[in-house]
Amino acid sequence: MADAITARSDDYSQWYIDVVRKAKLADYSPVRGCMVIRPNGYALWENMRDALDQMFKDTGHENVYFPLFIPEKFLAREAEHVEGFAKECAVVTHSRLSTDEDGELIPDPESELGESLVVRPTSETIIWDTFGDWIQSYRDLPLLINQWANVVRWEMRTRLFLRTMEFLWQEGHTAHATKEGAIEETHRMLDVYTTFAEDYMAMPVIRGRKTASERFAGAVDTLCIEALMQDGKALQAGTSHFLGQNFAKAFDCTFTNEENEEEYVWATSWGVSTRLIGALIMTHSDDQGLVLPPKLARWHVVIVPIYFNDDQQAAVLEKADQIQEALEDAGLSVKLDDDDTQSPGWKFNEYELQGVPLRIGIGPRDLENDNVELARRDTREKNIVPQEGLIERIQNELEDIQQSLYDRALQRRQERTTYVDTYDEFKEVIEEGGFAVAHWDGTEETEARIQDETSATIRCIPFDQPGTDEDGRDLITGEPSEGRVVFAKAY
Amino acid sequence: MADAITARSDDYSQWYIDVVRKAKLADYSPVRGCMVIRPNGYALWENMRDALDQMFKDTGHENVYFPLFIPEKFLAREAEHVEGFAKECAVVTHSRLSTDEDGELIPDPESELGESLVVRPTSETIIWDTFGDWIQSYRDLPLLINQWANVVRWEMRTRLFLRTMEFLWQEGHTAHATKEGAIEETHRMLDVYTTFAEDYMAMPVIRGRKTASERFAGAVDTLCIEALMQDGKALQAGTSHFLGQNFAKAFDCTFTNEENEEEYVWATSWGVSTRLIGALIMTHSDDQGLVLPPKLARWHVVIVPIYFNDDQQAAVLEKADQIQEALEDAGLSVKLDDDDTQSPGWKFNEYELQGVPLRIGIGPRDLENDNVELARRDTREKNIVPQEGLIERIQNELEDIQQSLYDRALQRRQERTTYVDTYDEFKEVIEEGGFAVAHWDGTEETEARIQDETSATIRCIPFDQPGTDEDGRDLITGEPSEGRVVFAKAY
Repeated sequence: MADAITARSDDYSQWYIDVVRKAKLADYSPVRGCMVIRPNGYALWENMRDALDQMFKDTGHENVYFPLFIPEKFLAREAEHVEGFAKECAVVTHSRLSTDEDGELIPDPESELGESLVVRPTSETIIWDTFGDWIQSYRDLPLLINQWANVVRWEMRTRLFLRTMEFLWQEGHTAHATKEGAIEETHRMLDVYTTFAEDYMAMPVIRGRKTASERFAGAVDTLCIEALMQDGKALQAGTSHFLGQNFAKAFDCTFTNEENEEEYVWATSWGVSTRLIGALIMTHSDDQGLVLPPKLARWHVVIVPIYFNDDQQAAVLEKADQIQEALEDAGLSVKLDDDDTQSPGWKFNEYELQGVPLRIGIGPRDLENDNVELARRDTREKNIVPQEGLIERIQNELEDIQQSLYDRALQRRQERTTYVDTYDEFKEVIEEGGFAVAHWDGTEETEARIQDETSATIRCIPFDQPGTDEDGRDLITGEPSEGRVVFAKAY
Repeated sequence: MADAITARSDDYSQWYIDVVRKAKLADYSPVRGCMVIRPNGYALWENMRDALDQMFKDTGHENVYFPLFIPEKFLAREAEHVEGFAKECAVVTHSRLSTDEDGELIPDPESELGESLVVRPTSETIIWDTFGDWIQSYRDLPLLINQWANVVRWEMRTRLFLRTMEFLWQEGHTAHATKEGAIEETHRMLDVYTTFAEDYMAMPVIRGRKTASERFAGAVDTLCIEALMQDGKALQAGTSHFLGQNFAKAFDCTFTNEENEEEYVWATSWGVSTRLIGALIMTHSDDQGLVLPPKLARWHVVIVPIYFNDDQQAAVLEKADQIQEALEDAGLSVKLDDDDTQSPGWKFNEYELQGVPLRIGIGPRDLENDNVELARRDTREKNIVPQEGLIERIQNELEDIQQSLYDRALQRRQERTTYVDTYDEFKEVIEEGGFAVAHWDGTEETEARIQDETSATIRCIPFDQPGTDEDGRDLITGEPSEGRVVFAKAY
C-alpha cells in the first residue's frame, strides 16, 4: 500500500487524521475550521442519532426545531452565558451581497441589520424565550424537548470531529415544576448517555460532576461522562446540565403551581455531538485503520468474492448473493463488493481501513468445500468456517466483537488509571497519559495551579469510582479533601 | 370552543395560520422570518424525511454533510448563481461580540473577517469545490449524494412553512460522466418526488419543466412538480435541476473518461423542503383543523376513554390499553389519552384540530356491548363498530382515508383545471383560482406581460397532461405555440 496509515507510536495526531481521511469519514473544507462529513462518517452519525433518538423518545422527549439565529441581545440576558459564548461566535450583520467599485462581492452596506444575529452556539436563550409562551401552569410541565441541529463556535484550533467550528449535535432542553424534577432529569439523561457510550460505542466512561470552573456557562451544575483515549488523554463525551432557574429568570418564564402561586420554572439542558465520532475512533482503531463496534457500524459484514475466470465468477457471485440475502434477512447490514476493477487484496485492505467488523471471503475452493473464510477486524483473526450455521456464527461473532471492544477499552483504562498521593507521582501519571485519581482541596486556586504546572484538568468529581469518596489531604496543599477527583490532560 | 379556526371562506390566509398554530405545528419566533417547529410539526417532517430518505437510498444515494458557511467568492464563480442568491443571503462578517462604551453588545470590530461568509442558501458551490477532490476518473462516477440541512434565504415576506428565512430541506447533488446520465438522474428524482407527493402526501401533482425565467439560478433545465391548493393557487412542491457542466466549469471539476481524455463532469441537484408541510395542510385540511394522510400522520389512531366513576375508569382503561397494544402490534402509531384533567369533548375537538385520522371513543356502554365508536377525521363520519375485527377494520379505514384524500384532491384539481383559448376566459380562470392550460408563444415577453396583467405565472410546461402537446396559437399574440402550458397564481 503506497500510503499506509501513520503508526500510533510514531505520531498519534497524524495517525488520527490518517484514519479519518483514509477511512473516508471526513475531509477538511475550504471554510477554515469546518469539515465535510463523507458518506462513511455520516452513516456513523445516522446510526448514533437513531439509537439516541429512540432513547430520548423512550424517556418522553419530543423533537422540535428552533431558529439558527439568535438576536445578540438574547445572549446578554444571562450574564455567565454571554461571558461563555460571546467570544467565539459567528455574527451575521448583513442581509445581502453587492459588488464594490472593483467588481468584488462585499456585504452590501445598505443591508446592514439593525440588530446583529448570532449563529447559535447553543440554544438555551432562544428556547427559553419561547418557553415563556408555552408554559403557563404546572399542567404544562414537565416540558421535554430535543433538537438535532448544527451549531457554530468560533474555534481557532480545530481538529476533524473533535473540535470544529461547526458541528452537528443534539441539544435537549427541559422545563420542570420543581428543583428535584429538574435534577432528576439531569441524572436521567446522564444515564442515557452512559448507556449509549458503553452499550453502543463500547466505550467505558467515568460519570461525575464538573468543578465550578469547568461548568457550562449559565449552569448550576454540570454532569459529564469522561472517556480515556488510547494516548492517555481524556475526552468529555457528553454533558447534562442542571440550570436551576437561571434561564427562567433571564427570560421571565414563570408558571402557576398547584397552590395557584407564580414560580420560576426549573431547567436542564444536555447534549452530545459529532465529537463522539472522534471518541469512537480514538477508543478502538488501530494502525490498520478504523475499528467499529458492530452496533454502530454502517456494514456489519462485507463479502469479497474471489474468482479467476467467468465460470467461477458466476458460481461465486451466486453463492455470495445467497449469503448476503440470508444475512440481510437476519437483520444485518451487508455489503457485497462485486466490483471487478479491484482485486480481492485491495478490497481486503480497503474494508480493514473502513473498519467493517467481519469480512467473508469466498472463492472456488470454498464452494467446493462448502466453506467461507471469515475474518474479524478487531483481532484480525481469520478462520475457514462451514457455510452451514454461518448466520448464527456471524451473529455470535458480532456480539463477541461488541463485548471484546468494550472489555479491551475498559482494561486499557484500568491500566492507565492510578490513585496517586504525591505530586511527583501525579506528574508522572499525567506525563505518561492516563487518569490520575487524587485528593483535591476543592479550591479553584489549586485546580488552576495544577493545570498551569501539568496541563491536567479535573475531568470530574466522580460518582461511582471505588474509594473516591474517602476523606484525605490535598496532593499539594495538604488541606482537607472530601474525596478523590479525576485528573487528566484532555481533548 | 372559545377560539375556533377562521373559516376558509372567510379568510383563507388566516385559516391557514390558525391551522398551523392551533394544531401546534409551528410558531413565529423572535427572529423575524424564522419559525419554531413544534413537536407536532417536527414529527410530520421526520415522517417525510424518513420516507424520502429511504427512497433516496434505494436509488443509490448516500448522505453527507457540508459546511453551513460558503466563502462569498465561491458564489461569484457561477454567474447566474450569484445573480440569483447574492441579494437574499445572511452574511457573517465577525467572529466575536464585545461591548461598546454604553455596555451594549456589538460585533467586535477587531474580529472582522478578511473574507465574509454566506450562510448557505443552497450548496452547489461548496459541494462542487469539493467534488473536484473526489472525482478523478470515470470510475468515481456517478457520485450520488444528498444532505439534510438548514438553509437561509433572506425573504422579506414570510409565511409559516411556505416561505421562511430559514428552512429545513434536503439537497441532492450528483455528478455524472455523461450528459445523458445526468438528465436521466434529473428525471429519476422528479419521479421520486412525484411518488412521494402522490403516494405519501396524497397530493396529486403536475410534472413538467420550468420556463427559462423560472429556472434555478445556474441550471440548464429545471423540472418541477406543481400542486393546486384549495384556494386555487399553485404550489411548487419539488424541483430537480439538470445543471449541465456549469458548476463543473466554474469549479474546474474534470474527470478522465474511458478513452483517457479529460472532460468536465455533468451535474444535477434536487430538493424539497419543510414547505411541503404547508402544501400538505393546504391540500387536505378543513375548517375544523388539520387533516393528515395516514402515511405521514404522527398518530394513526387516538383512543379517548369515557367514564363517569372510578370503577368505569378502571374497566374502560383496561380495554383501551388492550386495544392500543393490539393496534401497536399491527404496526400502527396510537395515542391513548388518559389525561383525566380534560373532558372527552375537549379531547375530541383537540385531536380533530390535530388531524389524527381515526378516533376511537370507548365508554361503559361500549364495554357492555363489545363495541367502540370509530370516527374518521376526513369525513367526520362516526360509527359504532364491534371490537371484534377492529384491527382489520382500522387498517382498511386508514387505507381508505389515504386513497380518499388523494381522490378528493385530484377531483378538486380537475374541477379547477381549465383549457382556455381566449385571454378573457384565461383571466376569469386565474381570477377564480385554478390552473389555466393555454397556448403560449414561447417568449419571455408574453410570459412577463401575462404576469403583469394577471399575476399568473407559467407553473410548468407539462410532461403528461392530456392534449397539451398539440400545436396552437398563443392566447394573446396569436403566434404559433408548440403546446399548452400550465398557468396559475402561485405561492
